[in-house]
Amino acid sequence: MEAPARQNGAVGLSQAHVVTISDGAYQGQREDKSGPVLVTLLVGAGFEVSGPEVVPDEMERIFEAVTTAVARGVDLVVATGGTGLGPRDVTPQAMSTIFDYEVPGIGEAMRRAGADTTPMAALSRSMAGVREQTLIISVPGSPKGASESLEAVMLIVGHAIQLLHGDTSHS
Amino acid sequence: MEAPARQNGAVGLSQAHVVTISDGAYQGQREDKSGPVLVTLLVGAGFEVSGPEVVPDEMERIFEAVTTAVARGVDLVVATGGTGLGPRDVTPQAMSTIFDYEVPGIGEAMRRAGADTTPMAALSRSMAGVREQTLIISVPGSPKGASESLEAVMLIVGHAIQLLHGDTSHS
Amino acid sequence: MEAPARQNGAVGLSQAHVVTISDGAYQGQREDKSGPVLVTLLVGAGFEVSGPEVVPDEMERIFEAVTTAVARGVDLVVATGGTGLGPRDVTPQAMSTIFDYEVPGIGEAMRRAGADTTPMAALSRSMAGVREQTLIISVPGSPKGASESLEAVMLIVGHAIQLLHGDTSHS
Repeated sequence: MEAPARQNGAVGLSQAHVVTISDGAYQGQREDKSGPVLVTLLVGAGFEVSGPEVVPDEMERIFEAVTTAVARGVDLVVATGGTGLGPRDVTPQAMSTIFDYEVPGIGEAMRRAGADTTPMAALSRSMAGVREQTLIISVPGSPKGASESLEAVMLIVGHAIQLLHGDTSHS
Repeated sequence: MEAPARQNGAVGLSQAHVVTISDGAYQGQREDKSGPVLVTLLVGAGFEVSGPEVVPDEMERIFEAVTTAVARGVDLVVATGGTGLGPRDVTPQAMSTIFDYEVPGIGEAMRRAGADTTPMAALSRSMAGVREQTLIISVPGSPKGASESLEAVMLIVGHAIQLLHGDTSHS
Repeated sequence: MEAPARQNGAVGLSQAHVVTISDGAYQGQREDKSGPVLVTLLVGAGFEVSGPEVVPDEMERIFEAVTTAVARGVDLVVATGGTGLGPRDVTPQAMSTIFDYEVPGIGEAMRRAGADTTPMAALSRSMAGVREQTLIISVPGSPKGASESLEAVMLIVGHAIQLLHGDTSHS
C-alpha cells in the first residue's frame, strides 16, 4: 500500500502509533509479541511508526495512551489486546469513550476475515472508530489475531485516512 | 417487488420520502444526482415517492427532515449522503438521535453487498432503523453507492414495512 | 459439543436457562413451541437446562427474568422472541439495559447463517452480550428462527463460557 499523501501538503509518511494493552506485558511478566508484529506490518505498509507503548488493562490508561497519540496528530492508532470476554478485557468499553463515532464495517470485516480461519473470531470485539481526524483500530491480543485482523483491513486504511483529511468526494 | 398492503386497509401504495444530505447540493454548487436515482428506484419498486428534499450536512436539519416525514406517516425514508468519514459527515450521528432502535442487519447487508464491488464499502456507515412505524435507511452519497445499497435490501424492505404495521407472526 | 469445564473446579455441567418472550404464550393464547426446542438443543449440547420461563413482551419482565438467572450463576441464558420490528418487539431494547457489553460478532454470525435460508434474516435483531460472567443470547421467536440461530453459534458458545470464567490466554 502506498502511503497516502498528507492533506496539509507536508512531505512525508503517514504516522501510526501502536499501543499494546496487556497487564502481563505491562508488569513485565510476559513479552509483548503482538506490538512488534504490528509495528513491522505498518512499516511495511509505508507508515512512520511509534511504539509499541505498553499499558495495563485499565480504561483510564487506555484512554490516555490513545488520546495522547490523537492529540499528537497521528493518522492511525492500532491497539492490540483486551478485546475478549475475560474480566479484564475492557478495551472495547474504553474505545466507546474514545471514539467520536464508530466505523462498524471495519470491525465486521476483521471478524469476517477471522472467521475463515476459526469460528472463534466471532468472539472478538475488534472494532474501529474515529476521534478527531485519527482512525483508531482495536485488534485482538494474540500475535496471530492481531496481524490477521490488521492485514484484513490494511487496504482500506489508507483510503480512510484520506477521507479523514477531507477528501469526501465519494462519501 | 409488490407494494405491501397497508395495514389500515386503505387502498394505495406504500409511501416513501427521499432526503438528499449534501452541503454542495443544498447550496446549489452541485447537482443532486443521487436523490433522483433513488426516487426512480423506489417508484419502480411500487412506492408513491415524495422528494428528493435537499438539506445541508447539519444534524438539526437532517433530524427535522426525517422526523417531519415520519410524522406525516410515510412507510419509508431513504436518506442519501453524509455516511463517510469526512469532517462534515454527520448523518449516522443524526440517525442515532432519530431512531427508536437500529436494525443492524440492514446496514450489514448493504456493506456486504458493496464489498463485492469494492473493499472500500467497509468504510460506509450506512445504517437503518425504526422511528414509530417508519423504516429509515441511510445510504452513501454517491449515485452508485446509493443505488447499490438500496437495491441490496429492497427485497426485504416491503417485509419490514409489513412487520412495522403489526404483522409480528414470524418475529 | 463437550460441556466446558467449570472454572471453579466444580464437577458438573454448564448451566443454561431458557426464557420465552411472548405475550401470546404468556397469556396462554398460544403454545410455546420455541422454548422447548431450545431446551432440547441445549440438553443435546451437554448443558443442564432450566426453563423455559415464559414472560410477556415487557422490558421490566424481560430484565427481571434474565438478571435473576444471571444472579443464580448460570453460564448461559437463551431468550427467544421479541427481536422483530413489531410494536411489541422490545427484547433488544431490554437487552441493551441488561448487557454489561455486547458481543457483536455473535449477532452477525446468527444473521449471516440465517441469510443462507432467507434474506429476511437481516431483519432479525438477534444479539448477544455479557452480564457479569453469563453469556446471554437473544434469538427470534419462531421455532425455526430460534433453533437455526442457536445452532449457528453453538460451537463457539462453550469457548465463550470458558473465556468468561477467566481463560483469557488468547484474547
